[in-house]
Amino acid sequence: MNPIGFYFDPISPYGYLASTRIDDVAQRHGRSVEWRPLLLGVTVERVMGLKPVPQTPLKGPYSKKDKHRLARLFGVPLVENDVKELSSLNALRAFVCIEQSQPQLAPVFAKAICARLWARGQDISSAADVLEEAARLAIDVDALAPMMNSPAAKDMLRQKVDDAVALGVFGVPSFLVDGELLWGVDRLWMLEHWLAKGNWNPKA
Amino acid sequence: MNPIGFYFDPISPYGYLASTRIDDVAQRHGRSVEWRPLLLGVTVERVMGLKPVPQTPLKGPYSKKDKHRLARLFGVPLVENDVKELSSLNALRAFVCIEQSQPQLAPVFAKAICARLWARGQDISSAADVLEEAARLAIDVDALAPMMNSPAAKDMLRQKVDDAVALGVFGVPSFLVDGELLWGVDRLWMLEHWLAKGNWNPKA
Repeated sequence: MNPIGFYFDPISPYGYLASTRIDDVAQRHGRSVEWRPLLLGVTVERVMGLKPVPQTPLKGPYSKKDKHRLARLFGVPLVENDVKELSSLNALRAFVCIEQSQPQLAPVFAKAICARLWARGQDISSAADVLEEAARLAIDVDALAPMMNSPAAKDMLRQKVDDAVALGVFGVPSFLVDGELLWGVDRLWMLEHWLAKGNWNPKA
Repeated sequence: MNPIGFYFDPISPYGYLASTRIDDVAQRHGRSVEWRPLLLGVTVERVMGLKPVPQTPLKGPYSKKDKHRLARLFGVPLVENDVKELSSLNALRAFVCIEQSQPQLAPVFAKAICARLWARGQDISSAADVLEEAARLAIDVDALAPMMNSPAAKDMLRQKVDDAVALGVFGVPSFLVDGELLWGVDRLWMLEHWLAKGNWNPKA
């Protein structure tokens, strides 16, 4: 059966929330998960020409409150952070390198870096932040440190984000399974419906 | 028990989809529904500074396909329309007038005007379109016609949209109940959770 493409960006609290659920959802339906990086700075700002959600009037304040409700419903921790210039660029460059060198650890790292920011409120922006998190996970940070700043890493990430955009992916989390693209943590119920039934017919 | 504030704009297919469900959801939980008009042209474009969804890269094409999946899941008709300059201004001015003159028919009209556009693909933009729909519902169109173009009708609608924005409402559909604001047809499950439990604790 096809894997579930799971598009994440650690910058998104909704992506973090979905990251705590996606493995369980997939496993219950006998699917694997392919973690795929997305840069919301590219899709939302450059491709779509919108503002980041936190800086969008009305939607920013809504989201600030809403993410805590969802975390309660999900039964997972979620804290505010006071990071001033949040960036996921280093984290996602590290992710694509780990995919190459220690692929089995890539999803583990992805979940850990999301949780670092949203469950513990720690910064993920600098290379030092990213390497500190990687070091907790038996990732070879001496190899990772030079690799994540290489032109090759930058190219790999850029290519993956371009590929996502070419498939129509724009938000986080997004789920792509059997050609069906679903956007939003609030669509997990639709993902479950598709995985159970393979169509959009109403439940009997 | 507090009513459910249901924010709609007939211009939104997601609002139409929610309009086919909200009464049933409310009834099952012993709540009433207050239909409240919103103008997405005001909130999305003027207040939030965003583009309308159909004109937003990636999100436009996603939504064009997505609404049909949801309609299938909901078991309701949904068709594309070829209306060039779609506007809900006349429809919502009529709505606030009907609220004054025949309040019991206001939600009936709201549902009918949403269905006119999304279930049947007919235009709702002109006063003639709106009055044609109203005439099917035993609404006094001879009284409505002059009233919906009055300064009083324009002021009433403007005030209601301003009130919504002051409460933080920005999208359609939105549900406001017991101080909890939920945005999106894909949040009906959260609305049901709140109505059943009155908190955001996970299901036992």
